[in-house]
Amino acid sequence: MSEKKETIVALLHGPDQPGLVSQVSSWIFHRGSNIFHADQHKDEAANIFFQRVEWSPSGDPKKEAADFKAFVHDELGMEISLALSTEHPKVALFVSKIDHCFHDTILRFRAGEFAGELACIISNHDHLKADAEKYGIPFHYLPVKAENKASAEEEQLRLLQKTGVKCIVLARYMQVLSARFLTEVACPVINIHHSFLPAFAGGKPYHQAHQRGVKLIGATAHYATATLDEGPIIHQDVTRINHRNSVADLIRKGRDLEKSVFAQAIRLHLDNRILVYNNKTVVFD
Amino acid sequence: MSEKKETIVALLHGPDQPGLVSQVSSWIFHRGSNIFHADQHKDEAANIFFQRVEWSPSGDPKKEAADFKAFVHDELGMEISLALSTEHPKVALFVSKIDHCFHDTILRFRAGEFAGELACIISNHDHLKADAEKYGIPFHYLPVKAENKASAEEEQLRLLQKTGVKCIVLARYMQVLSARFLTEVACPVINIHHSFLPAFAGGKPYHQAHQRGVKLIGATAHYATATLDEGPIIHQDVTRINHRNSVADLIRKGRDLEKSVFAQAIRLHLDNRILVYNNKTVVFD
Amino acid sequence: MSEKKETIVALLHGPDQPGLVSQVSSWIFHRGSNIFHADQHKDEAANIFFQRVEWSPSGDPKKEAADFKAFVHDELGMEISLALSTEHPKVALFVSKIDHCFHDTILRFRAGEFAGELACIISNHDHLKADAEKYGIPFHYLPVKAENKASAEEEQLRLLQKTGVKCIVLARYMQVLSARFLTEVACPVINIHHSFLPAFAGGKPYHQAHQRGVKLIGATAHYATATLDEGPIIHQDVTRINHRNSVADLIRKGRDLEKSVFAQAIRLHLDNRILVYNNKTVVFD
Amino acid sequence: MSEKKETIVALLHGPDQPGLVSQVSSWIFHRGSNIFHADQHKDEAANIFFQRVEWSPSGDPKKEAADFKAFVHDELGMEISLALSTEHPKVALFVSKIDHCFHDTILRFRAGEFAGELACIISNHDHLKADAEKYGIPFHYLPVKAENKASAEEEQLRLLQKTGVKCIVLARYMQVLSARFLTEVACPVINIHHSFLPAFAGGKPYHQAHQRGVKLIGATAHYATATLDEGPIIHQDVTRINHRNSVADLIRKGRDLEKSVFAQAIRLHLDNRILVYNNKTVVFD
Repeated sequence: MSEKKETIVALLHGPDQPGLVSQVSSWIFHRGSNIFHADQHKDEAANIFFQRVEWSPSGDPKKEAADFKAFVHDELGMEISLALSTEHPKVALFVSKIDHCFHDTILRFRAGEFAGELACIISNHDHLKADAEKYGIPFHYLPVKAENKASAEEEQLRLLQKTGVKCIVLARYMQVLSARFLTEVACPVINIHHSFLPAFAGGKPYHQAHQRGVKLIGATAHYATATLDEGPIIHQDVTRINHRNSVADLIRKGRDLEKSVFAQAIRLHLDNRILVYNNKTVVFD
Repeated sequence: MSEKKETIVALLHGPDQPGLVSQVSSWIFHRGSNIFHADQHKDEAANIFFQRVEWSPSGDPKKEAADFKAFVHDELGMEISLALSTEHPKVALFVSKIDHCFHDTILRFRAGEFAGELACIISNHDHLKADAEKYGIPFHYLPVKAENKASAEEEQLRLLQKTGVKCIVLARYMQVLSARFLTEVACPVINIHHSFLPAFAGGKPYHQAHQRGVKLIGATAHYATATLDEGPIIHQDVTRINHRNSVADLIRKGRDLEKSVFAQAIRLHLDNRILVYNNKTVVFD
Repeated sequence: MSEKKETIVALLHGPDQPGLVSQVSSWIFHRGSNIFHADQHKDEAANIFFQRVEWSPSGDPKKEAADFKAFVHDELGMEISLALSTEHPKVALFVSKIDHCFHDTILRFRAGEFAGELACIISNHDHLKADAEKYGIPFHYLPVKAENKASAEEEQLRLLQKTGVKCIVLARYMQVLSARFLTEVACPVINIHHSFLPAFAGGKPYHQAHQRGVKLIGATAHYATATLDEGPIIHQDVTRINHRNSVADLIRKGRDLEKSVFAQAIRLHLDNRILVYNNKTVVFD
Repeated sequence: MSEKKETIVALLHGPDQPGLVSQVSSWIFHRGSNIFHADQHKDEAANIFFQRVEWSPSGDPKKEAADFKAFVHDELGMEISLALSTEHPKVALFVSKIDHCFHDTILRFRAGEFAGELACIISNHDHLKADAEKYGIPFHYLPVKAENKASAEEEQLRLLQKTGVKCIVLARYMQVLSARFLTEVACPVINIHHSFLPAFAGGKPYHQAHQRGVKLIGATAHYATATLDEGPIIHQDVTRINHRNSVADLIRKGRDLEKSVFAQAIRLHLDNRILVYNNKTVVFD
């Protein structure tokens, strides 16, 4: 992490074979371009090679990215995703009534901490409408009830598509997204869960933690999948509690944890530092 | 925590009522004794009052402790346990083959970190016999198999009673203690589990953690109960891992965590800082 | 820390003597009042006794607080400060251009995290005027230059007095307050310094840290005194960095640290949990 | 970090130029060898390129290492150091009377945590002679006084050379090594200092920390240089303390910190993960 230049970032993975580091770096070198940072990982058990490589292109970035993609895919037989550091993807923030992650995330976007653009806010309540307007961010109030969930999700999908959203962040959004929604939206969805998963999955994790008498509470940012609270974990952290702390104290202490864990996950994702494989993440940080 | 004087430590709990702090402290004051430290806690939901009070007695410590016990029990209607700081209870260490908690705990006893006396080591293997002898601590090799478990536990109980053991610490002892053993031994048993409970209870927690892709691993010290890995939690801590870490790395990193969490739990217990209530601990630290 | 009741909080300190815990708790008990929480500490070397006691008064809280104050002062010969949980003191926030602690602190006041009222903002720049207005908090723009510092501080004092401010929080305020200002304002001033004091006192601590090659950066909240960065430390925390991190990365990572350390110090102060003695703090948390 | 294979580890650094990653990886690939792990770093300000590359050689490891060294040095104009994973360098441990880092380090060597061989112990006291003998490690008692310091260091140098020591670890050795000794021994010397440097350099850091009233204490592992406590920092960590903690408590809590920070530094060094540049470390972990 250093000052930003115009770079191409590629995330590759596929079966390991000798010479991958050499072939990738030589392609870039012979193109006259300069590697800014490269990191790789091998899953020894699965024999899978993972690489993140970031470089300053020598010519037209889009053309060079496309050529590299063809090379990696066709000649090395690997899967690849590519991003240009100058293209900041549009992000949608989903929120309900609880507002700490909402404010924190918006302020970080405003401060330039994230390589993305906060394009819109979608909420099943109108509580945060006035705040969103003060921040100058479009706010869409779409109530979700048991009886209108399918049509509400349709409307969400329509809005997201119209806006050109490439990533959704769930800032304590208190509705479960349907498997169908996740399939159709076809973009990464980052959720923040207020426990150290896999402990205390599901509802009311602070109440569960208080009941069990644990000495640390946690927060977990993960990609949402069709199975609640079981998606690939991006980042986790914990904070210490003691017997004096009521559930209300846990909720207060947890807010700080949720904010920082959520922010770190959004940053890593928008910096193209995360590869998902086998329901786990490789995080090149 | 400061330099040690001869003190009495009392741990009380019972239904809350007005004036408990006043009545307890006044009893000690009017006895001519001096409170060294006092801490109390109320469980608001259950309306239970907990207190740890430590004082320098004005007369014969045993007599003063007995009188205080009668006062608290008979006049305040509370449960109480008492200890004299000059009486260091005998502790038995149970171990199998894995030796990091074994060495660490013994060296801490030797360094005077714990207010107890390491009286004996009991193991279901003879791997650590030579090391125990170098440390000069009696080592009892008692193999435990499925077919002799009951008689092996009988032998353990006989040894513990003969030695006068008041506390057992399980330094990665790889046998489950039977409910019957726990009932008959009738003393606290502290276990170290190599995960952040309640996540990854049971066997091979580092393999479970690696499989799930968590970003932190933990260790939990708790009192052993008849239900495996579900006893009252005393202390927990975590350390950060990443995608590069193999199960072997988790095991290595976890060793440091297990040692420090286990030691902290033993210290708190032997300093009489822990009250158990409702399968949770109140830790006066 | 639990749900709030109407309570009196007293912070006492003075030479240790036998029976202090008893005398204090008995006074409250015989008044018919009920201790909610009590904690004490002895500085063994200096023979000073410190206590924080919080109780639900039986009669008029102001009268009971005044009577208690007279008792402690006149009969026990100790210094005392008192607060009623229902009286939320007015707080002034000083800020320059850097805005992360500004937003974070305001949002925490709004969320009810602090037992105080954010009464006004004073800044030597007008950059955050619009934001302050959106939050609905009076903003006073008072430029401070070398040549007008004395008169600017006069104006600040006038404003603070008029508003009835009882505590000042310096949310990365980039001006050194004069000894004269600190004397005249006569209220606690909490500063956040962006290093782990006493390392890297003075200007540009992140540059100093980068230059020295430390592996952790820190933040320190302390009471401001006439000697820059040498006041009593309230709270500190650190975060890990590595050789890849530029000064810009340290600044970004440090922001999160500054926010949480600053907030914790403000919370502890407004909950009347801090006693200052000998340029150090006793924090009853 | 994964299970160990026979590998070559190279640490390179020199002025940055395009194609370094490509040239290094291609040399290895065309040799028929396979890169196991590679990591690089650029100091943007100084325009220096750093790399750690680890690979399984295709032929005789010593020959391949020598050829690679010639290539890097002669053709790329970079400085390089090389190690074979099968060659475990001899390490000398210096100690005085304080024994926690002594035991901890020896037990970690015994447990196979470090890629080195603990060859001898040198002490200016004979307190730990019996313990060293139980561990089966040669112990050399060499008293050091003001009047014999030069000759004592001569004797140390003779012993180290005879033993073939390649690295010295100072496990709370309470003597300052002279600049002349450091020059003549010509091998890395790792020291553990019991504070968060640069805070509390010099003697009695826990007393200094207690006096200042900090809320965290630290430990720092660094390479020893002629300027006391100012060498390149390898690793640091901290732990929380409070007003209740006496200097004795700080010393006890600090022991755990010193052990783990020291061990981490020794591990990183013996795994050839550290490059020193400009009195700072690049740590490829």
